[in-house]
Amino acid sequence: MRFSCPQADFNTHFSLVSRAVPSRPSKPVLGNVLVKASTDTQQVTLIGFDETLGIQTSFLAQVDQSGALTLPAKLLGDIVSRLPNEDIDISEDDDEPVITLSCSAGRYQVRGLSAEDYPNLPEVESTETVKISADALLEGLRGALFAISSDETKQVLTGVHLRADEDSLEFAATDGHRLSVVTTVEDSGSPVTNLRSSVTIPGKALRELERILQIYPSSEPVAFYLDDTQAVFDLGQQRITTRLLEGQYPNYRQLIPSQFERQLTLDRKQFTASLERIAVMADQRNNIVKLSINNEASSLSLSVEAQEVGNGLETLPAQITGADLEIAFNVRYLLEGLKALPSSEIQIQCNTATSPSVLTPLGGTKITYLVMPVQIRG
Amino acid sequence: MRFSCPQADFNTHFSLVSRAVPSRPSKPVLGNVLVKASTDTQQVTLIGFDETLGIQTSFLAQVDQSGALTLPAKLLGDIVSRLPNEDIDISEDDDEPVITLSCSAGRYQVRGLSAEDYPNLPEVESTETVKISADALLEGLRGALFAISSDETKQVLTGVHLRADEDSLEFAATDGHRLSVVTTVEDSGSPVTNLRSSVTIPGKALRELERILQIYPSSEPVAFYLDDTQAVFDLGQQRITTRLLEGQYPNYRQLIPSQFERQLTLDRKQFTASLERIAVMADQRNNIVKLSINNEASSLSLSVEAQEVGNGLETLPAQITGADLEIAFNVRYLLEGLKALPSSEIQIQCNTATSPSVLTPLGGTKITYLVMPVQIRG
Repeated sequence: MRFSCPQADFNTHFSLVSRAVPSRPSKPVLGNVLVKASTDTQQVTLIGFDETLGIQTSFLAQVDQSGALTLPAKLLGDIVSRLPNEDIDISEDDDEPVITLSCSAGRYQVRGLSAEDYPNLPEVESTETVKISADALLEGLRGALFAISSDETKQVLTGVHLRADEDSLEFAATDGHRLSVVTTVEDSGSPVTNLRSSVTIPGKALRELERILQIYPSSEPVAFYLDDTQAVFDLGQQRITTRLLEGQYPNYRQLIPSQFERQLTLDRKQFTASLERIAVMADQRNNIVKLSINNEASSLSLSVEAQEVGNGLETLPAQITGADLEIAFNVRYLLEGLKALPSSEIQIQCNTATSPSVLTPLGGTKITYLVMPVQIRG
Repeated sequence: MRFSCPQADFNTHFSLVSRAVPSRPSKPVLGNVLVKASTDTQQVTLIGFDETLGIQTSFLAQVDQSGALTLPAKLLGDIVSRLPNEDIDISEDDDEPVITLSCSAGRYQVRGLSAEDYPNLPEVESTETVKISADALLEGLRGALFAISSDETKQVLTGVHLRADEDSLEFAATDGHRLSVVTTVEDSGSPVTNLRSSVTIPGKALRELERILQIYPSSEPVAFYLDDTQAVFDLGQQRITTRLLEGQYPNYRQLIPSQFERQLTLDRKQFTASLERIAVMADQRNNIVKLSINNEASSLSLSVEAQEVGNGLETLPAQITGADLEIAFNVRYLLEGLKALPSSEIQIQCNTATSPSVLTPLGGTKITYLVMPVQIRG
């Protein structure tokens, strides 16, 4: 194997796939990145894989000799990231699994492991395919990923549930306390999907997908292939494979009330800023903030009572329909939801102090963020 | 107590003194900041103290009623830092040690503790005084602080040793493996010092002093008072008090060779960049980098051999006097020293592969950075 390319190209792509390399690999070769170079395509392909998540990327390079070798992800990544942005040459030793990296700054030799010991990324055999625009996919991820559970024992709740209708794709995430549902609509005119079943995709893979979509904004739709156990996102030069999460996803649609007695419209940034201050006081106690809806004053008051420590009260203007109500929430759930709603104004809809409330953006992406209130005394 | 001031003023000064508030106070009142307001001076004074380090600051405010109270550092700091930059009103309750903070955003009540329980900052009774320009002080701190020991059991080595001559102040720091000595010269014409003895000042206090000097650049000299156990730095509106470190400071001057057989002049940034890359490989092994001086080629080579992992070699141009030599160092000590040398070119002076080398900046502040080489085989 022998090729040369700009340092910036190698660095960007190598760090991209390194994110799938586990910090504690089950066998040494998985701590490496698979590097393949082809004289035919004049491309270098890199792969990182942790046995659940795989990331593959390709880029153009001047390839003088084809070959494949795995190279230590952290060591080589740390060296290359510190090199000046000039052409670098990488050539494999004839006798040993060692590469020599040369550039104007100097020369590094790094020992790798045979590419033969590196597992193949899982192939997806099904023809079940979804095509979705990169923008819609990004909207869905941004609106749902924050609401998944970080508790690995919670299985399906650590992923985002995808469900396709004829011209829309629904992203749902819940950790058992709150739920976010994003419905993205394809207006590209192309048939969206022939996804027969709904699937749950691990949050880790989707976070990497979100990252790549942000680094490489694309006008091309993303293809998404599925079989019973695996999913593949194909972004052209990049490819993410992931095992699916098994198990029945909660029937979340039934949780969302169909009617609301009360509705408030608020400025999102102002509401967020007030909640962030009130949260400082709420953190002293139990994270609970009380919302008091005052229809006559067209205002929403936020208050916290942290006995022995202090208390806080902020009042915001709000457009209100429905009667006054006092209702309490975990302030963290409100804040996390507000950050994911991409509009300047938001709506809160609720019925009683003990039934679920829903936050939605006013315009833009269709997001339904449901939060259970917390019971407060007297 | 009742006063009002811009949020930004209160926030800046409150966070400044909060840095001296211990995260685990030995008694509750030390987890608070002492807040004093005076109608006479129309000033608010804040104090944080961890029983070793004390920080005091004053700022102008509209004070309507004098008073003093201690208030929780983290809670109040976190609220105020999130408020919009408008005037805030702070008033003490008549009956209880509680303040009410009001502003356009809302109202917060925070419980404090009586100012009577707060210890006085130590007074320095001696008349031993040093005056030093803020710039010279900052130079001394930047050139020495990085070299102190972070090992709390090493006593005097966790501080910077100050020693005054007639028109200069010497800052020395060592952790036993390397030594940095900065000599600052006063050219302001004013008598620098009547410091009779040398003292060792805890690194923590000096880091805060460095921070404040960076936030509030001053053209006024800093006054520095001493007695047997305490030091005070007086910066006008800010005051830092600290206990001195006890014990005999090592006789470091005798460690610095008076003559050198070899001398190299190098570009500092280029040398640093090469060392940072070589350090990635050196980290795999024992952090040792080998320097090979090549007089004929006017070059310095840096190399690392990490068996089973790889190796690295970089070569830099250098002006050299003296014979060729191979000498090895802990790469971290070289890097830390190079970051503190404030010139574009630096000099390395050495005798043999087993005697101390010295790095100095070419021009600017007078810094002598001594590093012991590491013995290498064969």
